[in-house]
Amino acid sequence: MSKFHYYGGLEGGATQSKFVLYRSDGQILAWSKGECTNQWLIGQDECCKRIHKMVETAKQTAKLPADTRLKALGLSMSGADEEESQKQLIAQIKSQYGGDCEEVYIASDTWGALFTATPAGGIVLIAGTGSNCQLINPDNTSKRCGGWGHLLGDEGSAYWITQLALKTLFDHDDNLNICPNSVEKVRDIMKDYFKISDKVGMLDHMYSKFDKSNVAGMCKHLAKGAEDGDQLCQHVFKEAGKVLARHIVAVEPAIAQSLLEGEGGLHVVTVGSVWKSWQFLKPGFLEVLTAERPGRRIREVTLQRLKQAASVGAASLGARAVGFKLPLDYSANAEIFFHGKM
Amino acid sequence: MSKFHYYGGLEGGATQSKFVLYRSDGQILAWSKGECTNQWLIGQDECCKRIHKMVETAKQTAKLPADTRLKALGLSMSGADEEESQKQLIAQIKSQYGGDCEEVYIASDTWGALFTATPAGGIVLIAGTGSNCQLINPDNTSKRCGGWGHLLGDEGSAYWITQLALKTLFDHDDNLNICPNSVEKVRDIMKDYFKISDKVGMLDHMYSKFDKSNVAGMCKHLAKGAEDGDQLCQHVFKEAGKVLARHIVAVEPAIAQSLLEGEGGLHVVTVGSVWKSWQFLKPGFLEVLTAERPGRRIREVTLQRLKQAASVGAASLGARAVGFKLPLDYSANAEIFFHGKM
Repeated sequence: MSKFHYYGGLEGGATQSKFVLYRSDGQILAWSKGECTNQWLIGQDECCKRIHKMVETAKQTAKLPADTRLKALGLSMSGADEEESQKQLIAQIKSQYGGDCEEVYIASDTWGALFTATPAGGIVLIAGTGSNCQLINPDNTSKRCGGWGHLLGDEGSAYWITQLALKTLFDHDDNLNICPNSVEKVRDIMKDYFKISDKVGMLDHMYSKFDKSNVAGMCKHLAKGAEDGDQLCQHVFKEAGKVLARHIVAVEPAIAQSLLEGEGGLHVVTVGSVWKSWQFLKPGFLEVLTAERPGRRIREVTLQRLKQAASVGAASLGARAVGFKLPLDYSANAEIFFHGKM
Repeated sequence: MSKFHYYGGLEGGATQSKFVLYRSDGQILAWSKGECTNQWLIGQDECCKRIHKMVETAKQTAKLPADTRLKALGLSMSGADEEESQKQLIAQIKSQYGGDCEEVYIASDTWGALFTATPAGGIVLIAGTGSNCQLINPDNTSKRCGGWGHLLGDEGSAYWITQLALKTLFDHDDNLNICPNSVEKVRDIMKDYFKISDKVGMLDHMYSKFDKSNVAGMCKHLAKGAEDGDQLCQHVFKEAGKVLARHIVAVEPAIAQSLLEGEGGLHVVTVGSVWKSWQFLKPGFLEVLTAERPGRRIREVTLQRLKQAASVGAASLGARAVGFKLPLDYSANAEIFFHGKM
């Protein structure tokens, strides 16, 4: 019998999923890919089937015997926030695909991202199509802020930035709120991106043909506009920086003291394409984070971005759940792009 | 041959439509009702067919000979803002149902509402499920503000008020924005109205099962909460009052001097159920309208609500388009619920 045992980790998304197979010495044996594993979109049966298939494929690639059971399977998945549905999913995997693994651990997608970058806990701040903030303390207590979708949250996301730019344009033209900067660059970006001749053409894209990711897709052109020096484009990113920092301030009272006092201060793992425009987020982000406020505790911050799929953190969480510390090279999994004392 | 001639007016909505048949002496001969006549929802063919049917029914009720042609047919319709589609609709009615009328006049739904209350022009301010503001001057020049739907406008509408209340609750719970008032009444209203046990249950109603009018339907319960003295409920209506007044301020530079100087000052015709809560809109509404601002011109305001369907104004507009002044009793068509000098 091999002296090694094995762990699996899944990053399950609404578009695609990625699975990693680890040996207990920290060696990655194989990767496999799959489609969406969000159970709200595809149902629990299909979700379990897809996970099983990725596990099987990875074992084959690693040339492990087909009857090898993983010690633990860690799942970090979008749409896996509720405890009740986590329990149901675990029960189904164990009963139907019990040969895959001894234990199953499930957490929402923010957890895998954080534990890919650090074993100690910290904050994950997502700003992609949507946005979300999750604090996870070393003792596993956690606090969330945002992530309620584009009608009740998602501040600082690509969708939010696009909507802010469009709303600024519409309100300026209506004389409802005069924009101190020119709105013409944003108007041009809107017309080019949506292939429309005027604002009325926008209504189709916002209502009858509404597609959140399509609207959010305009954000990268606003980022280009910011790079080209357009002041309104720069302004909407600054506003996004402010509101993203406000998510951190919202969870500040719950942050474990040890997370504030470690090397580099509070570690924030950033996820999502909006962070590519850090230079334009930065002024607003720092303005909010350094502002005096009652109970202010954050005096040093390190921002990281992942270089590795969040499947890695999922595997680590799965191992931790069965009492094993998977040796990971955290320095290879994430890189620091900002550090500041304030 | 009769000494009279005849005019028709249609209030065309996204849910239902109402047609009125006038004799040239100002006598209403008949009413008829129909379904939705928004051409974006049902197509132009069906729209023309439904209008024809209402005209026919009204003529039968009035016992007019079947070959009676109206001098003019005035249509005040939701979804009839664009000149190009107005022209197409007129062309189709004339070619296909030319026996119905000699001339066709089309305007958007705000126009019929205004000309039901007054022949002189003024402002229409809609705050129903959505919101919209339209200034129409005596010389027919006009200016619009808002009305861009719930993602880009509709401030002060029932949907907007509901969303503001919900967002205040979500942000308070998230510690993103602490509400100075208790959010518990709003939480109770949300749970009762949507039949859910917690905030997570709201996501279904905002996303997978989203229905704008269903969300907006919570507003009347917030109005009840305001009546019962809840401060957050009162606050969201005050905010709605502010933003509705800002629509008026937005069109202020374009208001014809004569509209400001007539009896009662500027006349604003209000449409929509949100105005039923005027007592709670009032503090915010007056705060904005009386605030000093560059180019302030409004010093006296009269708010009216319609007692008659906007079909009446549509008939009047149709008649005006062929050079005839339909005698209407405006005092019976609208009532004043606020007048103030400021």
